[in-house]
Amino acid sequence: MRMYDLIQKKKQGTPLTKEEISFMIQGYTKGEIPDYQMSAMMMAICFQGMTDAETLELTLAMRDSGDVLDLSEIPGKKVDKHSTGGVGDKTSLVLAPMIAALGIPVAKMSGRGLGHTGGTIDKLECFPGFTTGLTERQFFDAVKTVGMAIMGQTANLAPADKKLYALRDVTATVNQLSLIAGSIMSKKLASGADAIVLDVKTGNGAFMQKEEDAFALAREMVRIGNGAGRETVAVVTDMDQPLGNAVGNILEVKEAILSLNGQGPADLMEVVYALGTRMALLGGAAAAPEEALEKLKQVIINGSALEKFKEFVKNQGGDDSFVSNPQLLPNAKHLLKVENTQSGYVQRILAQEVGLASLVLGGGRTTKDSVIDLSVGILLEKKRGDAVAPGDSLAIIYANDMEKAIEAYGKIVRAYEIGEEKPAPVPMVKGIVTG
Amino acid sequence: MRMYDLIQKKKQGTPLTKEEISFMIQGYTKGEIPDYQMSAMMMAICFQGMTDAETLELTLAMRDSGDVLDLSEIPGKKVDKHSTGGVGDKTSLVLAPMIAALGIPVAKMSGRGLGHTGGTIDKLECFPGFTTGLTERQFFDAVKTVGMAIMGQTANLAPADKKLYALRDVTATVNQLSLIAGSIMSKKLASGADAIVLDVKTGNGAFMQKEEDAFALAREMVRIGNGAGRETVAVVTDMDQPLGNAVGNILEVKEAILSLNGQGPADLMEVVYALGTRMALLGGAAAAPEEALEKLKQVIINGSALEKFKEFVKNQGGDDSFVSNPQLLPNAKHLLKVENTQSGYVQRILAQEVGLASLVLGGGRTTKDSVIDLSVGILLEKKRGDAVAPGDSLAIIYANDMEKAIEAYGKIVRAYEIGEEKPAPVPMVKGIVTG
Repeated sequence: MRMYDLIQKKKQGTPLTKEEISFMIQGYTKGEIPDYQMSAMMMAICFQGMTDAETLELTLAMRDSGDVLDLSEIPGKKVDKHSTGGVGDKTSLVLAPMIAALGIPVAKMSGRGLGHTGGTIDKLECFPGFTTGLTERQFFDAVKTVGMAIMGQTANLAPADKKLYALRDVTATVNQLSLIAGSIMSKKLASGADAIVLDVKTGNGAFMQKEEDAFALAREMVRIGNGAGRETVAVVTDMDQPLGNAVGNILEVKEAILSLNGQGPADLMEVVYALGTRMALLGGAAAAPEEALEKLKQVIINGSALEKFKEFVKNQGGDDSFVSNPQLLPNAKHLLKVENTQSGYVQRILAQEVGLASLVLGGGRTTKDSVIDLSVGILLEKKRGDAVAPGDSLAIIYANDMEKAIEAYGKIVRAYEIGEEKPAPVPMVKGIVTG
Repeated sequence: MRMYDLIQKKKQGTPLTKEEISFMIQGYTKGEIPDYQMSAMMMAICFQGMTDAETLELTLAMRDSGDVLDLSEIPGKKVDKHSTGGVGDKTSLVLAPMIAALGIPVAKMSGRGLGHTGGTIDKLECFPGFTTGLTERQFFDAVKTVGMAIMGQTANLAPADKKLYALRDVTATVNQLSLIAGSIMSKKLASGADAIVLDVKTGNGAFMQKEEDAFALAREMVRIGNGAGRETVAVVTDMDQPLGNAVGNILEVKEAILSLNGQGPADLMEVVYALGTRMALLGGAAAAPEEALEKLKQVIINGSALEKFKEFVKNQGGDDSFVSNPQLLPNAKHLLKVENTQSGYVQRILAQEVGLASLVLGGGRTTKDSVIDLSVGILLEKKRGDAVAPGDSLAIIYANDMEKAIEAYGKIVRAYEIGEEKPAPVPMVKGIVTG
């Protein structure tokens, strides 16, 4: 088999076989197939697409390029959740303890990644002493005893995807549905869960801005997950404005704790309950959506989800007193009020601009080696649909550097669209995609 | 400017500007743009194509990536000829001295390349002592005194094209019209001629097998040549059967000398006259095609073309006694007759099979470093339209190794298609493309 012939075949629009895809991914991972051939292949795929069968085989080949976690020694059905990423997305922090409180084992592998804020791991590191550097043994034991654990991604998780993504990133071949879906799902499948709930974001702050693209990605990923023998459901949710009010690591952790205390913002909780319902159903904790929702509300009301979160933080070395007293988590030095100048209603808050403001403040990573400032961020005081008058505070900027604060200020002002009419309410859940 | 953005732009179907193409070609030649980005770009070009303006700018950028020969100190209009390559194509050997005999300076740069037989330079090296290793000074002086000289391609001729072609060759991106045309024309334009006549071959033994593809390539190259300010004309000619009767280096040199003696095969001479007419017109040696043809016939009849050839061979160190006595050129050890078994007419002779037979015998190069056996080859004794009876000799194989001869034999047998009806005559010249 020669890579040249595979490129030629794909260029002509003929689907590749399972063996050919395997050969290509294995050869590329080992360095036997050079970057310049793979980038030509990726570009040909951008033009010719991939069939469902090709997409599944590509995903499985990438999954199998490294370690695949075997969670079978943990009793019960393991349900994982993955978000395609957005601004203010602290869903995992709220959901994971809720699901664990329902008795479904949460064995989560998480990455740091790049973005407007840190990843879930960065946020958890707000608790002094908290670590995700667990051995597999410690991880399994933690799930068994506490019902919930989070470990960092192993270095050898889907290395083919890592190498391929880096290549696509510099050759303008990222933006192809099968490749995007395959990249996400290869890592998810390697993480070993029995069932997967995908939160596919759409809107200004999402990777897939258009709703139809988000649904297409959702369908593609659900097809892959089910094709790989893992029950997979996708929920397409709104990311046109930031989710909840807090954007920034410590600010988001505080909001997550508020939410576990029953005081979460409505939009965030709507997404949490929608995803949680699907997880509860897949995990066997409920037989119908109504029952699942009722049980999820119970674990908030009776405090068992918050208790589970404390237990989890403590079990992974974190100081859980901050969970009980989140006001003790450090604040940024400067608080800057973003003042409103018009009368009317908030029509939109461009999530992307808010995300960039957080990045400017130092809350996220621009390169793999950036150091995150956990205390900075933005607290939105007005959201879509809220009435506003001149002089009202739209948002508070938390900054440790006044120059950066001023740059962020401009972005927040640009993010807010104020108009005269009260806008129609926007549903947080756009739809659910099942296999 | 970033290569990433240029790939993205081309992928989306937006034409690149002159500055962008320059940036890309210069960066790639210097090694600042990596292969993996360039191969993604080449694949995007295969799908999106290039406009006429882009194709011209790409060609000029590749031309300017290395040395561009300045022939202005040689008086008169320099007319160059280029063939896209075929089997038995010894046209240059016959045409160059004819054109020089008309008083048009012939300052030709030639390569060795890969192929069924050697290139023009290899063939000329059949004359003991002949060299193309001239300095630019010697080359110019030779053209001025003799009226004709051939030098080897300088190492720094269109290096961007060399590097890019090698990349395209391993990434399945060779087959794109603008890229093919640009590759040929960048080298041709760097060779410095004032006007260019292109012999675009079509048929089984040609790069462009289909006539419509050959015309498309012809139009593209003519557009580039004229766009670059060089009068360019293309003649599309038949390469469905080998040109002339001889395939192989010494065999072809002998046939070229026969042709200069007025005994050339009809098909070869038809192509020679068609190309020569265009060269004579562009070079100002005639005002109308009929006049040009008349003058070309005269230089054969009066022996001045043969005389010019002798003079040229001698001037570049070759033993010109072999031009007067070509039968003294060495023969291969074994001569093997390919015997016909059917009654009827030759319908076709698959040029590609004959070419491969020559290659098997050792007459061509499979890699850059192959050593060519000058004495081997095939002499066709029957051509398309000839009546044949069982026992007739179709061709003679000239070999130095009986095993190779037997392998070549099979190919020659396969090459000949014999049928009952006399086939309709095929015109050698399919058409002429002017700017």
